[in-house]
Amino acid sequence: MPPGQDGYVHGYSDREHGRLVDQATTLAELLHHDTRYPPGASVLEAGCGVGGQTVALARASPGARFTCIDVSPRSLESARERARAEGLENVAFQQADILDLPFPESSFDHVFVCFVLEHLPRPDRALSCLRSRLRPDGSLTVIEGDHGSALFHPDDADARRAIECLVTLQARAGGDARIGRRLFPLLVEAGLREVTVSPRMVYADSSRPEWVEGFTRRTFTAMVEGVRGQALAAGLLDPATWERGIEALRRSAGPDGVFCYTFFKAVGRR
Amino acid sequence: MPPGQDGYVHGYSDREHGRLVDQATTLAELLHHDTRYPPGASVLEAGCGVGGQTVALARASPGARFTCIDVSPRSLESARERARAEGLENVAFQQADILDLPFPESSFDHVFVCFVLEHLPRPDRALSCLRSRLRPDGSLTVIEGDHGSALFHPDDADARRAIECLVTLQARAGGDARIGRRLFPLLVEAGLREVTVSPRMVYADSSRPEWVEGFTRRTFTAMVEGVRGQALAAGLLDPATWERGIEALRRSAGPDGVFCYTFFKAVGRR
Repeated sequence: MPPGQDGYVHGYSDREHGRLVDQATTLAELLHHDTRYPPGASVLEAGCGVGGQTVALARASPGARFTCIDVSPRSLESARERARAEGLENVAFQQADILDLPFPESSFDHVFVCFVLEHLPRPDRALSCLRSRLRPDGSLTVIEGDHGSALFHPDDADARRAIECLVTLQARAGGDARIGRRLFPLLVEAGLREVTVSPRMVYADSSRPEWVEGFTRRTFTAMVEGVRGQALAAGLLDPATWERGIEALRRSAGPDGVFCYTFFKAVGRR
Repeated sequence: MPPGQDGYVHGYSDREHGRLVDQATTLAELLHHDTRYPPGASVLEAGCGVGGQTVALARASPGARFTCIDVSPRSLESARERARAEGLENVAFQQADILDLPFPESSFDHVFVCFVLEHLPRPDRALSCLRSRLRPDGSLTVIEGDHGSALFHPDDADARRAIECLVTLQARAGGDARIGRRLFPLLVEAGLREVTVSPRMVYADSSRPEWVEGFTRRTFTAMVEGVRGQALAAGLLDPATWERGIEALRRSAGPDGVFCYTFFKAVGRR
């Protein structure tokens, strides 16, 4: 969930919606295969965005009831349409802010947050708010990426600079694109207990064409390309360096290229 | 296997022997659990060093016969002692150079190489030599680290600089400390087929104290500390920056610290 429409580094364009849906389809198994909620459980998905993760979540736990919130009415509308198209009947959507939740203490059995904390100036406060809505012993699951984990062959300094633009823009918007690595201390400091973190690495070479296409090209490279205008306008890179960087990212999707990126999944209990 | 005693970045001190043994014990399960050779199979372990991986390998495949070579007589002597102490009876040691193998074509059913290519100026040639000693359809397994994969919290520029010293020293000795990410193209270009690569990430936070101690402190940080003399003598960093970098690596082993490192395991067939 972004701090607000204007501050959301990825923007809200239709192209971006398409990218987020591609990303979620490709990654759903890797990220969510071990998230299963029992029948009757009430689950808060905080910052559902366009519903990219919602379908995988709700399908995997058909007996659980999901309350999915987001701060953006437009994203929620997309999420609603998607849930309707998929025939999901265990999901309700509601406009709400993570830092000002319209639910009493201990409202939910479980809370789920994916690709949200990276955009928040105070992820620690968000975690405290979310924790307080959990019943005692309820679980909190957090998934975040870490742009510092991007590793590719052929390695290229300009490609690293282009990625760094994304990190800088996200930082200027109040977020942290390298938050994945610090989920453990964040959850512990927010009072969660039994915190365990498991990294999920996407590894893509030409023996795995679906990952090259779905992740290297259509998720990661597309995400970097998506901030070209902002990066150049902010003077973070000159156009020639930017193009060389993007070209190098594309090479890592070539026949002898390799691309790696790591997501971090943390689970703790109230 | 190093290009020669003087060029081996990690050196041959007793302290280094201890580190390599610690490293192997902690990592054996993560790296080798899926390497099993059938009874009667002949396996070449190329560049066995002090036998750090040999014990895990030979134990897991008690019916296979291992021929373990290294270019360093001193390392081989340690490996022999270790194999004797562990009561291994399916292992033979022999002094030999990977680029000048004293075995005819198609001598082995399988070849295994771990933490060796990173030290070679021409890993492509080594792979071609090793491939030629494989029988048709025999497997080649390669495991390498990638220092560019080190990711930690709190992040620290001096720590990254200290790690970069290791990369630079290894490059000056003719090696590549970031070789892990390019195992896929290396094996494909060497003529191996059905090449698959699986990354193995070490993730250490204070919920996993055995990894913090065994990997963050005693393997990775110790490895960086081990090149202090070389790095300072070469003028790669000043002593104050170096100490701050090491101190930051130690912080990543603290209660709220996190440390990640990725090994790459590649398997292909002749």
